[in-house]
Amino acid sequence: MTDDYYRVTLPASEQPTQWYNIVGDLPAPPPPPLHPGTLEPVGPDDLAPLFPMALIGQEVTSERYVDIPGGVLDVLRLWRPSPLMRARRLERALDTPAKIFYKYEGVSPAGSHKPNTAVAQAFYNRAEGVTRLTTETGAGQWGSALAFACAQYGIDCEVWQVAASYRQKPYRKTMMEVWGAAVHSSPSPATEYGRGVLAADPDHPGSLGMAISEAIMMAAADPAARYCLGSVLNHVLMHQTVIGEEALLQMAMVDEQPDVLVGCTGGGSNFAGLAFPFLREKMAGRMSPAVRCVEPASCPSLTRGQYRYDFGDAAQVTPLLKMHTLGHSFIPEPIHAGGLRYHGMSPLLSHVYELGLVEAVAIPQRECFEAGLQFARAEGIIPAPEPTHALAAAVREALACKESGEPKTILTAMCGHGHLDLGAYEAYLQGSLADHELSESEVAAALESVPVLA
Amino acid sequence: MTDDYYRVTLPASEQPTQWYNIVGDLPAPPPPPLHPGTLEPVGPDDLAPLFPMALIGQEVTSERYVDIPGGVLDVLRLWRPSPLMRARRLERALDTPAKIFYKYEGVSPAGSHKPNTAVAQAFYNRAEGVTRLTTETGAGQWGSALAFACAQYGIDCEVWQVAASYRQKPYRKTMMEVWGAAVHSSPSPATEYGRGVLAADPDHPGSLGMAISEAIMMAAADPAARYCLGSVLNHVLMHQTVIGEEALLQMAMVDEQPDVLVGCTGGGSNFAGLAFPFLREKMAGRMSPAVRCVEPASCPSLTRGQYRYDFGDAAQVTPLLKMHTLGHSFIPEPIHAGGLRYHGMSPLLSHVYELGLVEAVAIPQRECFEAGLQFARAEGIIPAPEPTHALAAAVREALACKESGEPKTILTAMCGHGHLDLGAYEAYLQGSLADHELSESEVAAALESVPVLA
Repeated sequence: MTDDYYRVTLPASEQPTQWYNIVGDLPAPPPPPLHPGTLEPVGPDDLAPLFPMALIGQEVTSERYVDIPGGVLDVLRLWRPSPLMRARRLERALDTPAKIFYKYEGVSPAGSHKPNTAVAQAFYNRAEGVTRLTTETGAGQWGSALAFACAQYGIDCEVWQVAASYRQKPYRKTMMEVWGAAVHSSPSPATEYGRGVLAADPDHPGSLGMAISEAIMMAAADPAARYCLGSVLNHVLMHQTVIGEEALLQMAMVDEQPDVLVGCTGGGSNFAGLAFPFLREKMAGRMSPAVRCVEPASCPSLTRGQYRYDFGDAAQVTPLLKMHTLGHSFIPEPIHAGGLRYHGMSPLLSHVYELGLVEAVAIPQRECFEAGLQFARAEGIIPAPEPTHALAAAVREALACKESGEPKTILTAMCGHGHLDLGAYEAYLQGSLADHELSESEVAAALESVPVLA
Repeated sequence: MTDDYYRVTLPASEQPTQWYNIVGDLPAPPPPPLHPGTLEPVGPDDLAPLFPMALIGQEVTSERYVDIPGGVLDVLRLWRPSPLMRARRLERALDTPAKIFYKYEGVSPAGSHKPNTAVAQAFYNRAEGVTRLTTETGAGQWGSALAFACAQYGIDCEVWQVAASYRQKPYRKTMMEVWGAAVHSSPSPATEYGRGVLAADPDHPGSLGMAISEAIMMAAADPAARYCLGSVLNHVLMHQTVIGEEALLQMAMVDEQPDVLVGCTGGGSNFAGLAFPFLREKMAGRMSPAVRCVEPASCPSLTRGQYRYDFGDAAQVTPLLKMHTLGHSFIPEPIHAGGLRYHGMSPLLSHVYELGLVEAVAIPQRECFEAGLQFARAEGIIPAPEPTHALAAAVREALACKESGEPKTILTAMCGHGHLDLGAYEAYLQGSLADHELSESEVAAALESVPVLA
């Protein structure tokens, strides 16, 4: 490895073969999901209509490591290990003494980190005889990932795409169809719930919470079908830890440790995927990075939501999850980082935040796009709108280093490319992007939908 | 390397540091470009208003190898060496005894092989003080590549995009703008030639030949500007040979040699990039692959054009090039493989074809999209419309192997992803794609624009 490396490539032989489960290392376990009727913790039987037993087991395990099946590794090998990049040109453009690294997940077929868990979920479902999977998608990244994964294992895939995104991004729908999936605009005529929403407003833009409701209802009604979630749940976050495990090995290859780690947070899986293995090292005293969640100012579940039990979806069909939430009826402004427009935050990441292991900051979207544009011109890669939030935080940190003269090492989660989000860049370039900062009263109103438990 | 490899990764330390120039190994030199007025070979002075001296030198050299400057290697390192993949899942889907490999160039920032030469061209122009570069683009791949490259070296970039593509693919325009380029729809009001065309037909769909004319005219009128071409010329093909040099090393890593090599041909640079290093090995008797050009049935310059001196552009501003041509006034049907819609074929590749070193076949677009869809579902990667032509040829070959039982090794040039071409897949999925096979009289009519030399 020379001093002027740009890309740190992990040999295929060092591809991680275990997922890391941070639950086993935490000083306290995360609060369990509750049945909304009984307020008792949900058991495997409650979840069995929706998930295969293997994933239910992973959802509740406290084992620190879980072996990745060979049938999953085989598919991940199509693009993993993903590259760790040193953003030398961005460093020069910022004139900063900081070193900026980014772990790039846009090399997957679907262009984001999402296939890391989609492949695992499709694999376990197939192993238990499931022939049909349903899911929701916001920006389209998750739906694409599951469509790709289902094509790999010969499973029928049905996706409910948030209506606003369905209309705004026809290419995402086509991408899913290329991989053989059926795609519905949500709210859809396919469910009673969707029909009700459409009756009241035929042009309803939908929301991730609504699309989750529809996908769950369809899976629950078909014994051969199961449901997949692209973020939020423990097993999803665990599947993403291959990102951080690879990054640890790659940072070691160039003798570096992060002083600051930043990642964007929507449901939390991309952030957790990179951060949790580094938090393990931090908890063990082997390194001491500041670890920072970056969320959109228009959907600030960590920084302005409350840590309470709430539903994961709009129609209240999920268990109650203890998480940072803005209220399950909250419908964020249609910002372009569709993957970050979720009312809640992963219960596990919320718990980790409560334990003080990570920080959080909210950034408005124009600053994010500015950072994204600067990154694209310096590094070539055009980031998806979601990781521009992490980039904006990295740029803030690098400019602070310029002020202070500190040569910090910054590690950024670059979770996907923006090839199907160029409409958002066009809006930014034309000056038509607005920032949506929530008022106190908007937050208070949204929080009213959080149930008050007896 | 285990027996079940999917991705063959070349270490960064083995990145090729020289381009291969096949001219030095051919039994006869390619016929020179002629000045259309004098019919004498053009000299460096004729080309100096359009190209920097370093590239003019590369255009005419017969040195077998040319060193790649460090300033070019540094940028190529952002994505090179690119992966060589074994398409095991496609092999299984086809139930063939053949082994199918593909060299994947979609990992570049612009998503295709084009940045390999764009970076080199921008570098040499910058080194000679050029501050503005003009070019044309059809599908948008080349314009994107040059926009990216110019951003790397701080050069202003101006692109004339074929009007039909400009309207059909707004994301491509935005991608170029994200990298800081100015984009014109061609024919454009910016040139006298463009104004003339628009006066006769304000909705003219444009053609690559027209866009080349406009970009050349603009560069010739500005002493600080030069012109870049994304294919066709000798130096462009040479810059692409990093693809084949890497693939040779990667095939050796897994102890394989191709029995058949296929690549799509528009201007010829992607094909030459992969094939020329293998042709060197073939000419030296070290391997003996069949090497096959695949072109669209609607623009079959090799299989149905004539090998004659013709203009490279519609307005007759280029030198005369000895090449396989359908006539410089030929405007192909608006098929979706925009990168293959050029009336001519690289003079060097045409010469290689005349020498009998390569074969050629034309395939209609629906068969290509069918192969593309099958590939996407099996391998995950969604190919651009251009390389689906190579894939269709690979599938034909693999199915022939299934018939004969021969376990041939097939190597395919997978020159880019189709993230910005999903509209074409949508048309295919909806059944609205047509095949355009040229009639004899259409070919004869098109050939009438080829000049008859005294």
